[in-house]
Amino acid sequence: MTTTLAVDCMGGDHGPRVTLVACRQFLDRHPEARLLLVGAPEQLAGLQHPRARIVAATEVVAMDDAVEVALRKKKDSSMRIAIQQVKQGDAQAAVSAGNTGALMALARYLLKTLDGIDRPAIASPLPNAKGGATTVLDLGANVDCTEQHLLQFAVMGSALVSALTGNPTPSVGLLNIGEEVIKGSEVIKKAGELLRSAGNAGDLNFFGNVEGNDIFKGTADIVVCDGFVGNVALKTSEGLASMIGGFLREEFSRNPLTKLAAIVAYPILTAFKKRVDYRRYNGAALLGLRGLVFKSHGSADEFAFEQALNRAYDAARNNLLDRVEARIAHARPLLVGPTADPQPLEAAHIE
Amino acid sequence: MTTTLAVDCMGGDHGPRVTLVACRQFLDRHPEARLLLVGAPEQLAGLQHPRARIVAATEVVAMDDAVEVALRKKKDSSMRIAIQQVKQGDAQAAVSAGNTGALMALARYLLKTLDGIDRPAIASPLPNAKGGATTVLDLGANVDCTEQHLLQFAVMGSALVSALTGNPTPSVGLLNIGEEVIKGSEVIKKAGELLRSAGNAGDLNFFGNVEGNDIFKGTADIVVCDGFVGNVALKTSEGLASMIGGFLREEFSRNPLTKLAAIVAYPILTAFKKRVDYRRYNGAALLGLRGLVFKSHGSADEFAFEQALNRAYDAARNNLLDRVEARIAHARPLLVGPTADPQPLEAAHIE
Repeated sequence: MTTTLAVDCMGGDHGPRVTLVACRQFLDRHPEARLLLVGAPEQLAGLQHPRARIVAATEVVAMDDAVEVALRKKKDSSMRIAIQQVKQGDAQAAVSAGNTGALMALARYLLKTLDGIDRPAIASPLPNAKGGATTVLDLGANVDCTEQHLLQFAVMGSALVSALTGNPTPSVGLLNIGEEVIKGSEVIKKAGELLRSAGNAGDLNFFGNVEGNDIFKGTADIVVCDGFVGNVALKTSEGLASMIGGFLREEFSRNPLTKLAAIVAYPILTAFKKRVDYRRYNGAALLGLRGLVFKSHGSADEFAFEQALNRAYDAARNNLLDRVEARIAHARPLLVGPTADPQPLEAAHIE
Repeated sequence: MTTTLAVDCMGGDHGPRVTLVACRQFLDRHPEARLLLVGAPEQLAGLQHPRARIVAATEVVAMDDAVEVALRKKKDSSMRIAIQQVKQGDAQAAVSAGNTGALMALARYLLKTLDGIDRPAIASPLPNAKGGATTVLDLGANVDCTEQHLLQFAVMGSALVSALTGNPTPSVGLLNIGEEVIKGSEVIKKAGELLRSAGNAGDLNFFGNVEGNDIFKGTADIVVCDGFVGNVALKTSEGLASMIGGFLREEFSRNPLTKLAAIVAYPILTAFKKRVDYRRYNGAALLGLRGLVFKSHGSADEFAFEQALNRAYDAARNNLLDRVEARIAHARPLLVGPTADPQPLEAAHIE
């Protein structure tokens, strides 16, 4: 069966200049894939391809547009029309490098959440020391999460990783803090119990608690956390990686001698850079919706945007949506439904 | 005036083997400092110095001892006796590389918290891209913090940084998440208002919200956050730094050719390593107590432990305790006092 992606070609910091190049590469590499190129036709005319079709959209959601503007004002935005293609069944997944808040709000509004899911989550892989990737969610769509939300993230994350890697039982770690005075907040303690029950019921492969360093160690395949915590962990890592990279560059370009050493070390530094290259892991999944939506980093270049297309394509081909639904149905007895407030705690313990 | 530190010489992964070497170095470098070496006399006899005196303690809090054990069973532990020296006024600060939970609980039990402070916090500097350090608190002593706690952390962090750097108005950032769907949790929104008020009242220099990447960018001198979030950010950074270091080592030792390049690049790699050496930043302050206590990393080597001694010494010499008290008194109208603590610490049960 052909898989079609709807691409918001106007989104991101660079728009068609980057997205079209990535789309062409993607089409070349996937002879069965089809693309719907969504945006201003005159700006997309550069990509003529038998398996690509332009879908016109007259507006663009700007990177700094408020969610309200994307939802209520720009009703013909490329972002919205791309998601609309998924809703209509004309595409199996949408990809956008636009404003995360607007993308999540539009996706939620147009596609609605799946039964049993209160809040969609953002999941992204991060490289780990084992040479693989650790998928972390939520990365910022939800704050003040309850234990029920964390369970939903665990179930959805398992579906995502099994669709993308083929591993039917990826392990799930619950992000917690370690030896310090108090181990975990109230919500985390309750979430631990809930995830353990889900593990015992065969709904997921619960590893147990993990700490921040385990993300990059690769201790568990999936790390589940509140979106506030996940977002801080992600951005802190970006900040540290950028500082370390900057220091390394500075030291190697300090004087003619160190520059010479840099030339000698060039192949090594290149290999090193490749291993920690964030671009390879571009493409976050918006999970919990009745349709697949993937978010590329706004500043993605051609290479990075193509990775986001690849991830969306793999997820769609491997029926991520069905997998999420099946796993949620299976975990049903533990999911208390879309009312989950911090209150109905006892209800959650119904085995 | 002479400044005396009480050193828990038995704590940490290595005990006297590391702490005594660091103590001797410290005494050599600070001709006016005095040390109380706390621990088993026969193990401390190796360090004979006119400005060092042994204070006997028959027990040791193990790294994996429960808080309860440290508080109720081992009443003659080196950790406890070291803090006791501060309480008695025989030392101006205590330093230990032992178990964080036990140290915080003992310090809180023996010294009590300052008026206006509900919860002591753990503050530590992290290197930043500007070549300085960003002080982050809380790093794990408190979870489920309220906006009042975050304000207290901001006030205490300001006192710490001004005592250690001489900058009377260090800037304070509130750790938040950025452009994503929902900006900040309920507590963070309220904390933002409170910190703004404190800034307007001249109690602190409030920079505004910062994100995870700002910690290593050095956007603000101090970053304030819930202990759960801070602990995750810290450990995630440790994990990433360790992964990057591992990759770099692997690439440079891949084959004879890369090993040759490593020799050429050795001075550069050494300079680089020095810049990101976390040991230079060893020595976390336990803030909010009626006495100064500093925590060294458990795995600290001689160099790292000496840094913790240096930080404790600088803090004591620069009257950190008076500064914290003065700042709290000044911010009094905004601090609602030691009520509304949703979750008393273990230590609180003792009293």
